[in-house]
Amino acid sequence: MSAVGRGGATGSDAQQVGFDEAWFAERAQPAIRHLRAYDPGHDLVALRQRFGEAALVELGSNENPYGPSPAARDAIVSELSSLHRYPDPRGGALKRALAGRHGIGVDNILLGNGSHELLMQLAQVFAGPGDEVVFSQYGFAVFAIATQAAGATSRVVPALPLDAGMPLGHDLDAIAQTITPATRLVYLANPNNPTGTWFARERFATFLQGVPAHVIVVMDEAYAEMADTGAATDARPLLARHPNLVITRTFSKGYGLAGLRVGYLLAAPGLVAVMERVRESFNVSGPALAACEAALADEAHLQGTCARNAEQRAQLAEALASRGLRVLPSQTNFLLVEFGDDTARIESALLERGVVLRPMRGYGLHRYSRISVGNSEDNRRLLAALDEVLA
Amino acid sequence: MSAVGRGGATGSDAQQVGFDEAWFAERAQPAIRHLRAYDPGHDLVALRQRFGEAALVELGSNENPYGPSPAARDAIVSELSSLHRYPDPRGGALKRALAGRHGIGVDNILLGNGSHELLMQLAQVFAGPGDEVVFSQYGFAVFAIATQAAGATSRVVPALPLDAGMPLGHDLDAIAQTITPATRLVYLANPNNPTGTWFARERFATFLQGVPAHVIVVMDEAYAEMADTGAATDARPLLARHPNLVITRTFSKGYGLAGLRVGYLLAAPGLVAVMERVRESFNVSGPALAACEAALADEAHLQGTCARNAEQRAQLAEALASRGLRVLPSQTNFLLVEFGDDTARIESALLERGVVLRPMRGYGLHRYSRISVGNSEDNRRLLAALDEVLA
Repeated sequence: MSAVGRGGATGSDAQQVGFDEAWFAERAQPAIRHLRAYDPGHDLVALRQRFGEAALVELGSNENPYGPSPAARDAIVSELSSLHRYPDPRGGALKRALAGRHGIGVDNILLGNGSHELLMQLAQVFAGPGDEVVFSQYGFAVFAIATQAAGATSRVVPALPLDAGMPLGHDLDAIAQTITPATRLVYLANPNNPTGTWFARERFATFLQGVPAHVIVVMDEAYAEMADTGAATDARPLLARHPNLVITRTFSKGYGLAGLRVGYLLAAPGLVAVMERVRESFNVSGPALAACEAALADEAHLQGTCARNAEQRAQLAEALASRGLRVLPSQTNFLLVEFGDDTARIESALLERGVVLRPMRGYGLHRYSRISVGNSEDNRRLLAALDEVLA
Repeated sequence: MSAVGRGGATGSDAQQVGFDEAWFAERAQPAIRHLRAYDPGHDLVALRQRFGEAALVELGSNENPYGPSPAARDAIVSELSSLHRYPDPRGGALKRALAGRHGIGVDNILLGNGSHELLMQLAQVFAGPGDEVVFSQYGFAVFAIATQAAGATSRVVPALPLDAGMPLGHDLDAIAQTITPATRLVYLANPNNPTGTWFARERFATFLQGVPAHVIVVMDEAYAEMADTGAATDARPLLARHPNLVITRTFSKGYGLAGLRVGYLLAAPGLVAVMERVRESFNVSGPALAACEAALADEAHLQGTCARNAEQRAQLAEALASRGLRVLPSQTNFLLVEFGDDTARIESALLERGVVLRPMRGYGLHRYSRISVGNSEDNRRLLAALDEVLA
């Protein structure tokens, strides 16, 4: 065993002194030099150890408290005898199931190690130094990271004002006006994380008609399964008419499989073929491919899960509002809640009580917290702790 | 459900005509325009359907026929109740186990979605247009893809000649001489896939001393656990003295967990910190983190697996040589075998009999096939089929 040390802690590391993060950053590509990694929130492993798993109320990561279809678990068990095999690099069975589910062709689909990977690779493929990428203020954090990692320039469009019909939502008019000949990509999310906001497909169709064909419009629909709006917000029917439209989806939210890391995109076959060039052949694990295929077949579980979420979302929003808190409208499994000047104090007092929310300072939303909608017991415990803290 | 079609197959797709792969490639970054994806070999899913899984002899992917530690399977079962949770983004438990295993610090370790991801990201971070990346002819295929995807220039160094002590191996002298002020990365593999060749640590230490500190030397040790050479080839002791050395390893080979996609790199903490900026927070799945931690603790299984592989490798090499075939030396779980002018005919005749090898045409090794070392039954069936074909 070698004795590789930590920044010169031992004599043998003398020659490593000076070779710190700044030294390596200086030798990295310009795009990487000032890049900051995605912030995954609190260290939940440490919190579980501190409070005990049962005592913790985990409402910081927009996870699905009802879990996946039991068929997904069974599918993983069936895979246990072939862990030594590489996964199907083509993801054929899952893509066929997705094609059936969405009424599209297998070659309209690309699988990702979570939609996070796909959002990153879209910028890597289609944007670079001198190019512009447009997205909304308070748009999903990965949009800015993907843009920066690609060395492109972010054009952040102010969100709709708080007194708009959709407070803090995407301003599609302003986004359209920000598109220039230098624009390569537009990232949108419907509904959006962390605001919970959404817009109608009809409105989006008008927007798309004004976008030049060379601009790729990426529509992240990570929370689509959880939206009551259904067809009214679903962008899929627009794919056939707009070869520059990309829709990303995930098994992490509605399907309750965040632990497995599977997302996918729907797009024109030509775009998928170009993206395939940067995809690592085995980017989705064998158990994950099998579990997602099984989960997809259990439509009843999905529908039941989403119905329970919608019910709890309404109840939690009402309970928070009845305490005098502003709760933004949401079609997701989380609520953006205004705690105002007290935000940091309330967040840390809740954390002391084992209730984990997601702070929004990284988004510049200092007066808000994002609260995942838990199951009825989670929400009851959240409200009880909140009542203590607000008292 | 939408009706998104496939390249104009239906009337509704009229507006997609012309938006083919070439159109999108033209709009992709220069580095992507001529990129070709990694070739994962034969479509094994289709072959399993054609022959039936039991009738197929899968010797094309260098998989470990003995499978992982049973503890790895148990660990996955324990994770089935938390699939709805995101994995630990820090990979803390697995990294602590790896730190203990390798006698290094947790901050010397970066986890990847397979070492493939890490090899790609090393080029993404440290090389770009105008930069050069040096690797050997017949070096692992991902080296060239990573270089091209980053927009950098490959400097491919001719392999050692067939009559050298290590036929087709890395020529470290020539590699050293190819390093210029434009060089940012050197990729090496020890042992190397697909040649099976290796070099001594002492020789590598001399090489490293001549490499300027600003050149990152990536040493892929994917097959290290399977090498009998042990300490004589292990580069880990050199990490403390060389902050520009990166070692990549994987759970896909010795640990028999190719289906889970976990690789890692060992390097200076400063380099790891810069690489963390491009890592997607949840790049390794929850079940994979747990399984790898368990597999790492079962040292007896690893040693037993590698001993059986070494035994079978020696027997298979001898059996092939006794049939008059040239078999290159190997410290891995595969053999590079010269079939000469008959290579394509032999490969396809074996495939007709359900025996899958890996063709080497993509590497420019038209007279060779790469044959994974199976278990004794796999190897017996391979030899029986080969005797038919050679008769």
